[in-house]
Amino acid sequence: MKTVSENRAFGGVQGVYAHPSAATGTEMTFGLFLPAEAEEGAVPVLWFLSGLTCTHENAMVKAGAQRWAAEEGIALIFPDTSPRGEGVANDPAYDMGQGAGFYVNATQKPWAPQFRMWDYLTEDLPRLVFSAFPLAQAAQGITGHSMGGHGALTLAMGLPGRFRSLSAFAPICHPTSSDWGRKQFTGYLGEDESLWAPHDATLLMRKRGFDGPILIDQGTADPYLDLLMPEALAGAMAGRRQGGAFRMQKGYDHSYFFVSTFIEEHIAFHAAALHA
Amino acid sequence: MKTVSENRAFGGVQGVYAHPSAATGTEMTFGLFLPAEAEEGAVPVLWFLSGLTCTHENAMVKAGAQRWAAEEGIALIFPDTSPRGEGVANDPAYDMGQGAGFYVNATQKPWAPQFRMWDYLTEDLPRLVFSAFPLAQAAQGITGHSMGGHGALTLAMGLPGRFRSLSAFAPICHPTSSDWGRKQFTGYLGEDESLWAPHDATLLMRKRGFDGPILIDQGTADPYLDLLMPEALAGAMAGRRQGGAFRMQKGYDHSYFFVSTFIEEHIAFHAAALHA
Repeated sequence: MKTVSENRAFGGVQGVYAHPSAATGTEMTFGLFLPAEAEEGAVPVLWFLSGLTCTHENAMVKAGAQRWAAEEGIALIFPDTSPRGEGVANDPAYDMGQGAGFYVNATQKPWAPQFRMWDYLTEDLPRLVFSAFPLAQAAQGITGHSMGGHGALTLAMGLPGRFRSLSAFAPICHPTSSDWGRKQFTGYLGEDESLWAPHDATLLMRKRGFDGPILIDQGTADPYLDLLMPEALAGAMAGRRQGGAFRMQKGYDHSYFFVSTFIEEHIAFHAAALHA
Repeated sequence: MKTVSENRAFGGVQGVYAHPSAATGTEMTFGLFLPAEAEEGAVPVLWFLSGLTCTHENAMVKAGAQRWAAEEGIALIFPDTSPRGEGVANDPAYDMGQGAGFYVNATQKPWAPQFRMWDYLTEDLPRLVFSAFPLAQAAQGITGHSMGGHGALTLAMGLPGRFRSLSAFAPICHPTSSDWGRKQFTGYLGEDESLWAPHDATLLMRKRGFDGPILIDQGTADPYLDLLMPEALAGAMAGRRQGGAFRMQKGYDHSYFFVSTFIEEHIAFHAAALHA
């Protein structure tokens, strides 16, 4: 692992690190904010998964999350959204290939060898960060924005017991029924739709739900509502009697201005669960 | 004036607007955050001047200022740092030409016709924003980062009575004695150094000071300390018995992580003066 940069921020350190990943076979980059409390011992950690076109950097510089993580004494991890670089498969569309990993293990050509973001996030990167940094493996929460909200929801429900708390900003809620999902799952996972189900938050909610608190925010002025399909997940949560809140925020859109407005509440929400 | 974008943020609106500028003869772009209180009437306003290479966008998306402006009920203006576009003079160096206006009215070729950022910020843009938006002209504060800290200091001291409060993050403090200054003033203002003095914060502090509170933050790990020369301005402030605080923040560098860490205190500082 190599240090790309470290900046003091809010009494802690905002670092960026790069490492060879066994899962993707590429060099991967991630951001990690450690609060001052990390100097004394292991701290809880909140994963932030980003959306289409994002790198590790977007949420790290735009979400305004460090202020609240510092206040709560929790770390933040900002992974990348796909493998990258020359020699890595890509697609001219913004919503396929590099920057659009959709948090799955691809099984189809040309993606299969490298687009293994599920394994990267659930095995490879945790192994690295929990050995290299003072992070409490037993106190993990997860959140994300848009495609990253989809990732947060599917990882949290797909790995029972791994995460104590789950939130999302404008997540892709029902990708097996959306153009943000069907195209990518066909490309990455193939035509057999039964293999898509573990990567659809609405289907996971209907089948098993999440054993912990959930907080979801969605703007009512989001231009992508038809693709995100919040009604599917909100209905599934209510239908299952899943504990949690699905909030429609009047007038907010899909931007980081929306995320930064509500990040304070999300981090407080996670901190309450992670410090419990 | 045309609306480039408007996003709901923290209960208010983060807008970006473009307008033809008489001062520069070009189209200029600026960001304006209006808190919810602006729906009811005119609100105080804090100007944020940005540093080298920045557009109107950098501080708007990275500084995390809107959260605190919303809490205090004050507006934020994020101007650009120079005229831009094809047909506008430029220089291959990052610290000259477009993105590096240094907040002066250039008198030298090729800059003179368009690089008139002093007039743009003191006449042109105020005329526009105070007529088009609910902003209280009698309640203005000013801040900035790096070259923008230089701009904030020189505008505030150069226009007595205009601004009630003044702050800066890692400002260029003594440009007539620094390579961040001498090169640009020679290029924009010519060889006669007596014409540079109105654009040097340390010289202005020695000569007249500021009739209001001042707050300056500077990181001790800033890689540009030799160019910024904080010791010159801190010495001039103390020598003059200027009311204010010049704070050296241990371990912080020149990045927006530094700015975002202390922006809460700066906005509270300005709000106290602007609501008084």
